[in-house]
Amino acid sequence: MSELADHVESAVLIDHHVHGCWSAQGDAGDRIRFESALNEADTAPVTEVGAGFDSQVGVAVRAHCAPLLDLERHVGADEYLTRRTALGETEVSRRFLQAAGVSDWLVDTGFSAGLVDTGELTAASGGSTHEVVRLEEVAEQAAAAPGDYAEAFDEILGERAAGAVATKSVLAYRGGFAGDLGDPPPALVDIAAQRWREAGGTRLTDRILLRFGLHRALRLGKPLQFHVGFGDRDCDLYAANPLLLNDFLRSSGDTPVMLLHCYPYEREAGYLAQAHRNVYLDGGLSITHLGARATSFVGRLLELAPFRKILYSSDGAGPAEFHYLGARLWRSGMTRVLDGFVADGEWSAADAMHVVDLIAHENARRIYRL
Amino acid sequence: MSELADHVESAVLIDHHVHGCWSAQGDAGDRIRFESALNEADTAPVTEVGAGFDSQVGVAVRAHCAPLLDLERHVGADEYLTRRTALGETEVSRRFLQAAGVSDWLVDTGFSAGLVDTGELTAASGGSTHEVVRLEEVAEQAAAAPGDYAEAFDEILGERAAGAVATKSVLAYRGGFAGDLGDPPPALVDIAAQRWREAGGTRLTDRILLRFGLHRALRLGKPLQFHVGFGDRDCDLYAANPLLLNDFLRSSGDTPVMLLHCYPYEREAGYLAQAHRNVYLDGGLSITHLGARATSFVGRLLELAPFRKILYSSDGAGPAEFHYLGARLWRSGMTRVLDGFVADGEWSAADAMHVVDLIAHENARRIYRL
Amino acid sequence: MSELADHVESAVLIDHHVHGCWSAQGDAGDRIRFESALNEADTAPVTEVGAGFDSQVGVAVRAHCAPLLDLERHVGADEYLTRRTALGETEVSRRFLQAAGVSDWLVDTGFSAGLVDTGELTAASGGSTHEVVRLEEVAEQAAAAPGDYAEAFDEILGERAAGAVATKSVLAYRGGFAGDLGDPPPALVDIAAQRWREAGGTRLTDRILLRFGLHRALRLGKPLQFHVGFGDRDCDLYAANPLLLNDFLRSSGDTPVMLLHCYPYEREAGYLAQAHRNVYLDGGLSITHLGARATSFVGRLLELAPFRKILYSSDGAGPAEFHYLGARLWRSGMTRVLDGFVADGEWSAADAMHVVDLIAHENARRIYRL
Repeated sequence: MSELADHVESAVLIDHHVHGCWSAQGDAGDRIRFESALNEADTAPVTEVGAGFDSQVGVAVRAHCAPLLDLERHVGADEYLTRRTALGETEVSRRFLQAAGVSDWLVDTGFSAGLVDTGELTAASGGSTHEVVRLEEVAEQAAAAPGDYAEAFDEILGERAAGAVATKSVLAYRGGFAGDLGDPPPALVDIAAQRWREAGGTRLTDRILLRFGLHRALRLGKPLQFHVGFGDRDCDLYAANPLLLNDFLRSSGDTPVMLLHCYPYEREAGYLAQAHRNVYLDGGLSITHLGARATSFVGRLLELAPFRKILYSSDGAGPAEFHYLGARLWRSGMTRVLDGFVADGEWSAADAMHVVDLIAHENARRIYRL
Repeated sequence: MSELADHVESAVLIDHHVHGCWSAQGDAGDRIRFESALNEADTAPVTEVGAGFDSQVGVAVRAHCAPLLDLERHVGADEYLTRRTALGETEVSRRFLQAAGVSDWLVDTGFSAGLVDTGELTAASGGSTHEVVRLEEVAEQAAAAPGDYAEAFDEILGERAAGAVATKSVLAYRGGFAGDLGDPPPALVDIAAQRWREAGGTRLTDRILLRFGLHRALRLGKPLQFHVGFGDRDCDLYAANPLLLNDFLRSSGDTPVMLLHCYPYEREAGYLAQAHRNVYLDGGLSITHLGARATSFVGRLLELAPFRKILYSSDGAGPAEFHYLGARLWRSGMTRVLDGFVADGEWSAADAMHVVDLIAHENARRIYRL
Repeated sequence: MSELADHVESAVLIDHHVHGCWSAQGDAGDRIRFESALNEADTAPVTEVGAGFDSQVGVAVRAHCAPLLDLERHVGADEYLTRRTALGETEVSRRFLQAAGVSDWLVDTGFSAGLVDTGELTAASGGSTHEVVRLEEVAEQAAAAPGDYAEAFDEILGERAAGAVATKSVLAYRGGFAGDLGDPPPALVDIAAQRWREAGGTRLTDRILLRFGLHRALRLGKPLQFHVGFGDRDCDLYAANPLLLNDFLRSSGDTPVMLLHCYPYEREAGYLAQAHRNVYLDGGLSITHLGARATSFVGRLLELAPFRKILYSSDGAGPAEFHYLGARLWRSGMTRVLDGFVADGEWSAADAMHVVDLIAHENARRIYRL
């Protein structure tokens, strides 16, 4: 193995956007659940057996995860699931989390059904965990609180953010990025909050209140993560083009803004990271689901974005295979892309190792002040 | 040759979206006609001799088609056309159609000027043919029929579809995908039909009637093919982004929807194929015109789309070179991309051969019930 | 070196869109100025030392430019800048300009602060220079002139264009391409001109007057260059998608329209070059800033655009490193991409050398009548 490959393999990662893995309460061998998880975009359960495995991530699980369960690479799906059942979720999770080579997990706790909490993730992985607060969840808590909505939002955000490292917005799932994203006037916030409370105060889609939350997060100053591009079908991918955030970013001040996932807009996101000093990007989730095609995607992440503006994440949620595959495919992809740069004489091996360190952990450590 | 390469070379193809090749009535050596066909997007005849050959598909014709006319690879354009004239259109077509390795041709009969019909295509190719009914043609027939438009449409669609395997929409050429694509109320259909009939009832561009046709096709339940992305200049490529179909697809039920061509939106189309259980895609037409760059495109088709959702087509129309090149370039591209996956240890050779079979014919056989 | 590689290395280039390099008045070793130039999109000066070098173009400077300053490839940034200071701007420029292998520079003179003029560029490079007139600058001159705006515009454009080879529009920086780009009626032009003059007549953003200028340029008939896609943050990248120019291009007649830079819309631009007989494209600026990733981009430029429709430019402005790197990275990228086509049997080496000549200089010589 080249010195560069070895460097990438041993690089300690900070996974700056992730969720919990499945808790031990679920059935580790539940085939429908497992195959359904292999399809990110379709939210309904798989109905054809094998359909989940007929995908890049399905092939990647059989290639890269099987050996960690003591199976041969490329083992059949049946055999994989049988072994998974035999080991049980706790042991499966332990193996994958520890093999990821992650020192710090920044956990978006806004999606948690059936998943371990941060304490369990720490215990199973041996790494540290830090919380990322979802703004739309803060909004729901403010809607349920007594008194003025804006004051309640500020108080809840202040309390929760005190122990957290970042905030997160799922605006991409709540109408997307098109239109005015300016800070709304207080009177409009009051009216919108009253209307939303009367409607039950769940699943925030009101644009005024979404915008209000974003600007409160900017004012807070901790890094603000945005879901961008690829996600499940509730997301309107057309309106999740990060270029639509341009005006918002122009007025976002110094608060770091993190563009997550980004597929198929990773080149657009790279431009934004070059244009705006406080903008960063990653390719989490996308890398996992691209499997053998992740290398090509990793290459495109290394275009216009300055190298101090790119981070690593897995966006793993559910099967701990994803917490591992994000790392496994990022490492392989980086090695292939950077080996190519070096073989072509475009980069020195030292350049490559420096950029690996920036993306693996240095940028995240600096931005999140870990 | 590797076992995988051999497997790809010998895979029987179902070409699920194609047109006729040129009929014997044309002049096989008509240089203007031939060079003009090498430019898909510009609809006016080529005026500079050689301009058509100065393109990826022009180089691909000289590389891959020449040997089938008993010429050397990379032969000059003049020599190629001289030989084409000497053999005549019938013999040229016979050679290319048979060399494509296609068992079944699904023929969009909505564009037929100067082309052979399905009977002639069967005879020349030795393969089976099946009809794809163009919805806008059904609309024109309904406009010309007596009585209620909607009833006439239903009756004509029912009759024509009884002997056909699919329907096809060229909405991309009639204003594109932006805006409301819901099922229009009958009263609006009546008014729009009356207005269109009064205007002559040709080249349907009325949005109400276009939407009406789409929803009738959904109700019919046979696969509905959509022209997406790359085509001639009558298509507004900006409005042919398949992500604009998202709301339509969300409400499209179980009817298979096939996204054709897709360039430069193949990654967006792949996302839709993952998000919607009834959505499929191909790279026909694009692969042919990309020539040496087809490999890169074939790779991008293998990203988010589950492998049971990808099909093969050539979209050949006119020179039978295109019916062959679609297959030739797809096979070479698949072999290079999959060989890469296997060499990297990402896929097993068995994985690769399985996916080749799905795309080459298994998916089409299942979806079209051939 | 293969015959093909040798052919690419020795191909004489016409750089059909470029600006001056830094004049000798500046400080050749000004680190803030140099690092800031390595970030195209962010217009504010770099504040973190080293941030500019942590980018593709920063690594490319150390890899490819260092040897021309008698340093080793991949030398450190400090050493590079020390050597640059010692040589001085004049000597640095002389070396890079002459090493670019450019016979003719087509200079957009609309951006000139701190840059050499065309006479100095001729002297330093040994190549010929030709002027490209920026339409928005003509507009500002017309606003400052007495009498009727439209008449003044025509007179100034006529005078300046007489000695120039092309016009240039920065519409991408003045609101982008969305919306009506038709020729505005004279009465509206009068009103808009009066309003703009009253407002001071600087930095034209009025859509009526911008459209007026474009149509005057079409009528002039000399090639009209458009900034497309990637640029600094004043450009709204979302609205700089060239597909939004489709209607304008449909009615643009015979005047050659040149789409510049194009990232990340190079595939869309290639489609337009195929669809419209008078449309051309290049990848200038983008290639430079993509560094080791330029090869991938150069490949994408060779997709749908006919080969008589692709040109070379560097868009160099400021450090003469950029005038050289555009050529250096284009040559390396072309060699790698074309070597791949030949190795795959898709192209003959003769095909490749023919296309190199078209893009390097033949197309530009024909279109600009040099």
